[in-house]
Amino acid sequence: MRSHNSALVLNAIADAPGSSRADVAARTGLTKATVSNLVDRMITADLVVEGAVATRSGPGRPGTELHLSPSGPHGLGVEIGVDYLATRLIDLTGAVRNRWVQPIDNRVLSPTRVLARVAKAVRTALAEEVRIGGVGVAVPGLIESATGILRVAPNLGWREVDLRGELCRRADLGDLPVLVGNEANFAALAELWHGIGTRNFVHVSGEIGIGAGIVVDGGLFEGVRGFGGEIGHVLVDPRGAVCACGSRGCLERLAGQEEILRQAGVSTPDELLARLAADDSAAVTAVVSAARWLGVALAGVVNLLDLPTVVLGGTFARLEPWLRGPLIAELDQRVVSADWSPIQVLPAALGAEAAVHGAAGSAVRAILADPDAYVTETLRESPVCAPPAT
Amino acid sequence: MRSHNSALVLNAIADAPGSSRADVAARTGLTKATVSNLVDRMITADLVVEGAVATRSGPGRPGTELHLSPSGPHGLGVEIGVDYLATRLIDLTGAVRNRWVQPIDNRVLSPTRVLARVAKAVRTALAEEVRIGGVGVAVPGLIESATGILRVAPNLGWREVDLRGELCRRADLGDLPVLVGNEANFAALAELWHGIGTRNFVHVSGEIGIGAGIVVDGGLFEGVRGFGGEIGHVLVDPRGAVCACGSRGCLERLAGQEEILRQAGVSTPDELLARLAADDSAAVTAVVSAARWLGVALAGVVNLLDLPTVVLGGTFARLEPWLRGPLIAELDQRVVSADWSPIQVLPAALGAEAAVHGAAGSAVRAILADPDAYVTETLRESPVCAPPAT
Repeated sequence: MRSHNSALVLNAIADAPGSSRADVAARTGLTKATVSNLVDRMITADLVVEGAVATRSGPGRPGTELHLSPSGPHGLGVEIGVDYLATRLIDLTGAVRNRWVQPIDNRVLSPTRVLARVAKAVRTALAEEVRIGGVGVAVPGLIESATGILRVAPNLGWREVDLRGELCRRADLGDLPVLVGNEANFAALAELWHGIGTRNFVHVSGEIGIGAGIVVDGGLFEGVRGFGGEIGHVLVDPRGAVCACGSRGCLERLAGQEEILRQAGVSTPDELLARLAADDSAAVTAVVSAARWLGVALAGVVNLLDLPTVVLGGTFARLEPWLRGPLIAELDQRVVSADWSPIQVLPAALGAEAAVHGAAGSAVRAILADPDAYVTETLRESPVCAPPAT
Repeated sequence: MRSHNSALVLNAIADAPGSSRADVAARTGLTKATVSNLVDRMITADLVVEGAVATRSGPGRPGTELHLSPSGPHGLGVEIGVDYLATRLIDLTGAVRNRWVQPIDNRVLSPTRVLARVAKAVRTALAEEVRIGGVGVAVPGLIESATGILRVAPNLGWREVDLRGELCRRADLGDLPVLVGNEANFAALAELWHGIGTRNFVHVSGEIGIGAGIVVDGGLFEGVRGFGGEIGHVLVDPRGAVCACGSRGCLERLAGQEEILRQAGVSTPDELLARLAADDSAAVTAVVSAARWLGVALAGVVNLLDLPTVVLGGTFARLEPWLRGPLIAELDQRVVSADWSPIQVLPAALGAEAAVHGAAGSAVRAILADPDAYVTETLRESPVCAPPAT
């Protein structure tokens, strides 16, 4: 019960920074004495800090402002991209403490080699002069949510990797909670928290692969086992090319970054953007073609799930000015409800950084959901690395 | 509060027919006095009947068995099919009191003509010697759940019909709750209640059109406005034929009943089944082709939503022995998670009757959720026809 009340109080402060103890009591329905007691424990644990004496009016003497502590436990986000590694530390308030990105082609390395690099990056982050309260790991693959096992990552060529177990073994994570998840899902959550302005949307991230995060009523819909959102492997053309997943005609093969670059005759997204800015016809044609296939697959998503908004993330966020027109035309033609409910298309606010930001943010949310684990020696509610054998 | 408690008590009896008042008190956490009081009121209102004195052991004297009343308020299901009208009355226990089906090509009639026939069928049902407690109306189109307005029904050629309003005006429904919904959604609910054995599945109904009902954690997922499940208009072949919805290459055009019959060179499902039983090669080829396209669209659903089970309903239930093999082959090839999580394919238990059964069952569920509306003059919680102006 105390654990539940601690989370209530901490989230009330997170939702309305600068609240007084009396404000928190009013919002949570707890007594002022209970709130004061819990707040004092969270100040001692550096989850909460006091600010100025609040000047707002109201009965009784003014209270002291309460804020989440910027020096409290941080969330560490890790992203294993197809062609980069990234980490990011964010504090309880969501502010970014540091970010690190290393371009590296993980497709040509074994999982063991990649995980050794990831472990090194994590140890570097752990050596920062901040407390780390939890770790989120984003991967371009299908992760079983209950176990943290990666079942398959077609674009990395990985199968059956015990990601949570391996990271726990290699990176001295002690009893930190470790959340492993699909990059597209983390990216969608990051956009939700960043205030995309709707609680119902599909976020589609374009990088080497294409993934979707489905957000319904402000929550992630990831399916029964966590394997949902695989829009990259939705068929758009039965005569299309064979895909890394073993199927044929997948969206990823026709609208993925590599195919767009190939059709445009360039080798990097920056080069593509330069050509688009110069109205190069091969570049424009390549992006319009990708937009149409993307529209076919997204029309299927909207026909099935009745989501009013599409958010373009990853490389698609940068290409949004060119994708937008043909994508909307395709949606308007193919979505049965489009005549009276036009679909909104928005560029993601966080772009290519969304996944690692969402992974770090998920670690922060886990702290906010279970503050007593950082105050006392109570059992954590999130999955943690096994303690060392005694 | 009493209204909530009435629903708790009635649902406890529904879930465990034959329970005593003491059993119900134990299951709901209410006092025996409260349960007895509520049960007595529901017996008076003929929602509950007493049976034999329970013989089960336990402390205290044995109680009397309680059952839902077979003579209590019934749910009336109505289905406006593309080529038939149907009604069905079921009692509180789910038993079918009567069923009526009229083959009629509703595509060639105006909505006004069809609604006049529907109203006549509803008045006939209302004249039965049973109480009717609510009405569910199943339609092959997109219904806005908040208003009961049909936005579009491509296979009927209908647009913007205020179905709930029209039925209320035409069928003397008084203050009966009226639920209007998509036929595929009602069919999926009927299969769920009938015990398909999983609480996570996609139910795909094949008739003239093809619709899906998505069930997640035992609840219908119908999207933000109720327009979800439109699998019939998911693209499976960009070079496919133009569809009634205005798009091209929709599943419905390649795997709908009319296309299967056309390819098989027959004119009715019964004829098709006779040819299949005789191993007629045109008939088998037509069904195998439909199975493959169905597999393409369903693989997209499973890749997006990670649902472990596909239920084949409507005409597809009868064709299941022929659809099954090629459908599973397509799913296994196209679903990214299929290697370690094979998808289960089941024929629907209720077949072509599922939608009207689900509509009637939804009306019954609405009664069970709001029993006080049948006991006292309290306001109903479901949308009802407006009372006559005073």
